[in-house]
Amino acid sequence: MLDANSVAQACAALPAQLPDLDWITEPIKVNRLSSDFAWFSPVLKRTLAGKRADLVVRPRSEEEIRRVVSACARAGVPITPRGSGTGNYGQCTPLQGGVVLDLSAYGQALWVRDGVGRAQAGVKLGDFDAYAREHGHELRWLPSTYRTATLGGLYGGGFGGAGSITYGPVAATGNVLGARVMTIEPEPRVLELRAPDALLLHHTYGTTGIVLELEVALAPAQDWLECIAVFDDFENGLRFADDVARSPGLIKKEISFLGAPIPAYFNALADSLPAGCHAVILLVHPASEQGMLECLARRGGSLSYRKTAQEARQSARYLIEFTWNHTTLNALKHDKSLTYIQSAFDPNRYVEQALEMESKLAGEVLMHLEFLRNREGQLTCSGLQIIRYRSDERLQEIMQIHRDHGVGINNPHVYIVEDGKQGRVNPDIVAMKARIDPDGLLNPGKLRGWEERAARAAAASA
Amino acid sequence: MLDANSVAQACAALPAQLPDLDWITEPIKVNRLSSDFAWFSPVLKRTLAGKRADLVVRPRSEEEIRRVVSACARAGVPITPRGSGTGNYGQCTPLQGGVVLDLSAYGQALWVRDGVGRAQAGVKLGDFDAYAREHGHELRWLPSTYRTATLGGLYGGGFGGAGSITYGPVAATGNVLGARVMTIEPEPRVLELRAPDALLLHHTYGTTGIVLELEVALAPAQDWLECIAVFDDFENGLRFADDVARSPGLIKKEISFLGAPIPAYFNALADSLPAGCHAVILLVHPASEQGMLECLARRGGSLSYRKTAQEARQSARYLIEFTWNHTTLNALKHDKSLTYIQSAFDPNRYVEQALEMESKLAGEVLMHLEFLRNREGQLTCSGLQIIRYRSDERLQEIMQIHRDHGVGINNPHVYIVEDGKQGRVNPDIVAMKARIDPDGLLNPGKLRGWEERAARAAAASA
Repeated sequence: MLDANSVAQACAALPAQLPDLDWITEPIKVNRLSSDFAWFSPVLKRTLAGKRADLVVRPRSEEEIRRVVSACARAGVPITPRGSGTGNYGQCTPLQGGVVLDLSAYGQALWVRDGVGRAQAGVKLGDFDAYAREHGHELRWLPSTYRTATLGGLYGGGFGGAGSITYGPVAATGNVLGARVMTIEPEPRVLELRAPDALLLHHTYGTTGIVLELEVALAPAQDWLECIAVFDDFENGLRFADDVARSPGLIKKEISFLGAPIPAYFNALADSLPAGCHAVILLVHPASEQGMLECLARRGGSLSYRKTAQEARQSARYLIEFTWNHTTLNALKHDKSLTYIQSAFDPNRYVEQALEMESKLAGEVLMHLEFLRNREGQLTCSGLQIIRYRSDERLQEIMQIHRDHGVGINNPHVYIVEDGKQGRVNPDIVAMKARIDPDGLLNPGKLRGWEERAARAAAASA
Repeated sequence: MLDANSVAQACAALPAQLPDLDWITEPIKVNRLSSDFAWFSPVLKRTLAGKRADLVVRPRSEEEIRRVVSACARAGVPITPRGSGTGNYGQCTPLQGGVVLDLSAYGQALWVRDGVGRAQAGVKLGDFDAYAREHGHELRWLPSTYRTATLGGLYGGGFGGAGSITYGPVAATGNVLGARVMTIEPEPRVLELRAPDALLLHHTYGTTGIVLELEVALAPAQDWLECIAVFDDFENGLRFADDVARSPGLIKKEISFLGAPIPAYFNALADSLPAGCHAVILLVHPASEQGMLECLARRGGSLSYRKTAQEARQSARYLIEFTWNHTTLNALKHDKSLTYIQSAFDPNRYVEQALEMESKLAGEVLMHLEFLRNREGQLTCSGLQIIRYRSDERLQEIMQIHRDHGVGINNPHVYIVEDGKQGRVNPDIVAMKARIDPDGLLNPGKLRGWEERAARAAAASA
């Protein structure tokens, strides 16, 4: 690998080599395009401070991408792909400088047919969803950032979102069908990878290949009813959310449980959130409203907010934008001292675990649970608990308390692929990187399996 | 209650009282309309032999139903409602004579809107499904008998069918929204019951009220791909079926596992079923074909049959008609000495249980598993195992072996509501009957909770 100075020099020469491309070199813009929402984590904020690209390029065609990649591969310049930078782990923050490849201008929806859609990586999820709706379909997952987030970004660094309660995560078999991928070589090649191979590029932060296009299975378009149910009692609210989540006859896109005082952070919804309430945000099919209300009556909650899809469109307020990490964002806007954790509850006892964690940590750990099906189809909760941050040590302690109670932690305070939900080196992913990025130029320093392989190779040849 | 002679006399007078109704009195027709597919069970065949109505009426309007009910209530004549008689427990076989109320001529689809449909009870499921499809929807469940079976019959005596893998049984919250019901009184009243009250008339064999109309939630219409996957190895086939069933990204309507030698009973599909194979019948969304094939490759099976929805329509052969109790029917056509059991596997270990039962009972109990979500949304298997019948005692033993291994038995060799899957007296159902059928004229002798109540009342007044 080149040293930082050599990278900087090589980068400085790039715009002159490819003068017709859209280069961004203004430091303030380069800084912004080198960062994401990692500032949710006080740990990452410190760790990633000052990490930035030497410059950014925003290609508009596959040919432009090919020319950039070719030039970088020849010069040994690191390339870090990015979408809209809505990630939370510094996925698009280059650790070793080089070029940030901003794919947000490469975002055409290509086609929808027979329940499948294909688009260029930089398509905004909201735009792709709108396109799919013109064809009677919708995306299977919308993260709360869908208005700005890109399909490629979701694939490279995301999990799923609203819709995962039905279709599971992006990674579940049958959700992603194929990816068009560019190799990082002086003469870049373009490969069409089908699932399951294509999945080896998922959630690897752009370290394993440049995803040009994605082909994904869609869902039938529905007009979702947007609701909030409120409860005096934590457990009743939680069990209501679980009842709706479990019922196979209730069709839903989103179920989010927000323990008090989280609802109090939602200024925009204050009229619908009585002081001290626990809230459940739901998107359900209109035909499932009656059944949802049956569940609500059984658990003694009340409906404080109800908008049809048309009313939601007219108000331009969508409840998805109060769920997943937008819950966190709303809380952090309210109180800068807050941070969060991400946790994976046990499918066999998530309600009991959540009650136990609440009884142990209420006040310091504010309960936010997203209901979803995991990759194997089991219903469970993913926690995006909000933490009153005191110190890194206490944050580690809180995560350990969860682990000690069987709640897995997908640590959002780390930037290495394997330290997040992947959890371990996956040799198939490392082999895919070797095939596509033999010189290790993509987002270097993020894939531990690759770094270890490189270190072993260096030791062997020493 | 009247004695049998008095009932017969009262019945004989009915056609003259209501001469414009469609009465059926020919003994051979009355016999046929007093029976269903209970002959699948050698036990029920014997027990129910000779049980028949005095006559049958086939009303064409709510007003005709009202007039029949009024006349019967005044005369104290038992009324046993029936659809198309595709049940398997003698649901429509009157134990105490009287009138069979054949609702098959009262079958108009009424409307479909916003994902909900409503129809008269006697609508054939296939016709209602076709009607819903004109509106972009389809029924959430199709039993294998859907071409002839009625909506009211499914509600009164059925469980679910193809579609229950996604939407669970008819009984799951959100599937049935309301029922229009007639009381059994000299001046019959018509009630609109909404769920959950409406569910108290479900699977009670017409003992608790006459269901006139049903309002049910629908599914978005899909063009299902019809497939058969075959395996040399029992366990691989079973695990493939389970993989597809579990994957939240694979959209499916039907998954049926048929252990050898069951596939050999399907003469019509012989070309697609190699000798000795284990087979999985699947209906999947076309966009899920690729993911299903990924699962198939992992388990080492091969696809021996594949028809698009259009090809299936052209051939007029639908694989649903080889699943659920049509599997049983195909086997019994082949070998009259066979019978079957119905069993409920444990959602937490159904694969292991099925392997265990196969290792213990292969050859005598032929494995047929329908994958489905139960009412609580857990994925599990319902067994419709085919039995080489030897004696009632051995049949009981086989059922006990299952119970001893944690596999619940929904005994299909009994005709009492509570002896089937209901399993116990439900006081809410008995109270509903008291409200709707105060004199106990509906299908008498089938609801134990009511008979016990009547016996207690008689004892108290003695």
